[in-house]
Amino acid sequence: MPRRGEFDLIADLFAPLARRCPAALGLTDDAAVLPPPEGGQGTVVSADMLVGGVHFRLEDPPDLIARKAVRVNVSDMAAMGAAPVGVILTLALSSNQDDAWIEGFVRGLDADLSTFGLGLLGGDTVSTPGPVTISVTILGQTPPGAHLTRGGGRAGDDLWVSGTVGDAALGLKVLDGALRPADPDHARRLADRYHLPRPRVALGMALRGVATAALDISDGLVGDLGHLCAASGTGARIEAAAVPLSEAARASLDADPALRDSVLGGGDDYELLFAVPPERGDAVEAAAREAGVSVARIGRLEAAPGIRIVDAAGTPVTLDRPGWRHAW
Amino acid sequence: MPRRGEFDLIADLFAPLARRCPAALGLTDDAAVLPPPEGGQGTVVSADMLVGGVHFRLEDPPDLIARKAVRVNVSDMAAMGAAPVGVILTLALSSNQDDAWIEGFVRGLDADLSTFGLGLLGGDTVSTPGPVTISVTILGQTPPGAHLTRGGGRAGDDLWVSGTVGDAALGLKVLDGALRPADPDHARRLADRYHLPRPRVALGMALRGVATAALDISDGLVGDLGHLCAASGTGARIEAAAVPLSEAARASLDADPALRDSVLGGGDDYELLFAVPPERGDAVEAAAREAGVSVARIGRLEAAPGIRIVDAAGTPVTLDRPGWRHAW
Repeated sequence: MPRRGEFDLIADLFAPLARRCPAALGLTDDAAVLPPPEGGQGTVVSADMLVGGVHFRLEDPPDLIARKAVRVNVSDMAAMGAAPVGVILTLALSSNQDDAWIEGFVRGLDADLSTFGLGLLGGDTVSTPGPVTISVTILGQTPPGAHLTRGGGRAGDDLWVSGTVGDAALGLKVLDGALRPADPDHARRLADRYHLPRPRVALGMALRGVATAALDISDGLVGDLGHLCAASGTGARIEAAAVPLSEAARASLDADPALRDSVLGGGDDYELLFAVPPERGDAVEAAAREAGVSVARIGRLEAAPGIRIVDAAGTPVTLDRPGWRHAW
Repeated sequence: MPRRGEFDLIADLFAPLARRCPAALGLTDDAAVLPPPEGGQGTVVSADMLVGGVHFRLEDPPDLIARKAVRVNVSDMAAMGAAPVGVILTLALSSNQDDAWIEGFVRGLDADLSTFGLGLLGGDTVSTPGPVTISVTILGQTPPGAHLTRGGGRAGDDLWVSGTVGDAALGLKVLDGALRPADPDHARRLADRYHLPRPRVALGMALRGVATAALDISDGLVGDLGHLCAASGTGARIEAAAVPLSEAARASLDADPALRDSVLGGGDDYELLFAVPPERGDAVEAAAREAGVSVARIGRLEAAPGIRIVDAAGTPVTLDRPGWRHAW
């Protein structure tokens, strides 16, 4: 398939995106140079790698692949209560990515750099005989000591989650043909949630000083709760009936209750899961209003290790599927 | 092949490396948090992606692969005159990387994080059906405005290069069996230069305020000089006889003069190429002594566009092979 050389790729497609970001030095240098953060803020940095056919479907539209690659990283900033600043993109392209694919990818990248006010700080494009592979490193800022971590939760803290849970895992089933919602609008909404996470940046920043521990749900609610508990040295109890579901997920679950495992254990939601002392519940509600995001209290941290899930009748629930991946 | 799960990989192998770096938060969180740089310095950031079988040989020892991945990024900091601070590693492993491979890789990573005083700030490990793929993002620091760029060169500036040129390209030929130096010690030295670049960090920092333009030679001397000229709006003239060669490269070139194209056009040397006004020649010598690196004047920037290479007799030299890759 016809494809631009690497230099043309950079000059034609990536450099225009970087023009909005003086720190990128036009992508013509060996590195980007960021000025010292204002107000003595610290730098927050994280990275995620996405492999075609593993972390996204090769047949997904390239603009959505780019946007998801940006958003999963923005979500890591949200989990830290940080303000995202810019990304570095390294991209290994196979011979399956023709010019149209790459242009679509850059269009999606451009759209979400704008959405989240991010600079394209630099990167690398290479060829691979394997599947297209995308690595995004994101830089953000927080005031010194203000960042959220996973490890500050204490027994007795309430557990909260933003938005709705399980949509992305059900959306992947829809895209793979394993789930066919009766309502085609439900199918579209679930697939959209798989393709386009909504990183909760404003909520994360508003939870500084409110939440004792936080992370974003990438591995699945239960798997990520396990990470939060391990870091905090606690166990947890979740009321399955309190886990917030979208109308589309609710309808799917009503039609097939076995989908509960996917909802509680499936990944890719990129909602925030956070612990808050009970007396700060009002502050959570205020933060959520400020951020324009719904939140729900779904359980609490407990001193006894392990995660206990109970249904509406108080009966313990067990899941087949633990969380499945983890960026450090 | 037996292999640790991803969580064991992080806990057993990567987390101990990150313990030296408080900013990494033990690799148990969603991101690393760096304190504000001392003295109001700016942050310099760059990234390189390396694909197995493309950018390194799959049969190379894994510790050397890791060290090269670190060093090519450290070299970008050197090219900017920046002090490297820490790296973020994303790593896609295929089923060909068993525990022994990964342990070797981490051993090499550990060694060079120590060599260059770098923190392991975080990253991601994933599986790929393709070749092992490594992406390293590096963060460094410079005082505001002190960084070197490619674009400040002016016609009349002398062109300098550090160390020796062409060893890495010849070393790759040795490893591939295409070059068999008569002296086995020469073969070892050339291969070593391919495997283990020597990033010129101290020289880069010492060239702040001395060089008008600088970059590191990754694509090859001539290819990278083209980048410097394009950014500076100049042409250049190189005296091929002035290009510094190691004893091993000299011997190879004497035996087969056709290797000159590989020496002048081949990549992977990671020496610094920089432009300096003639009156600052003494400052270059002083910077080189301070950094403990040899430097050589190989030509000059000229107003006329294009790169002219002349041999010892003044006869123009043409090359077959341009530079071949570029990280932005």
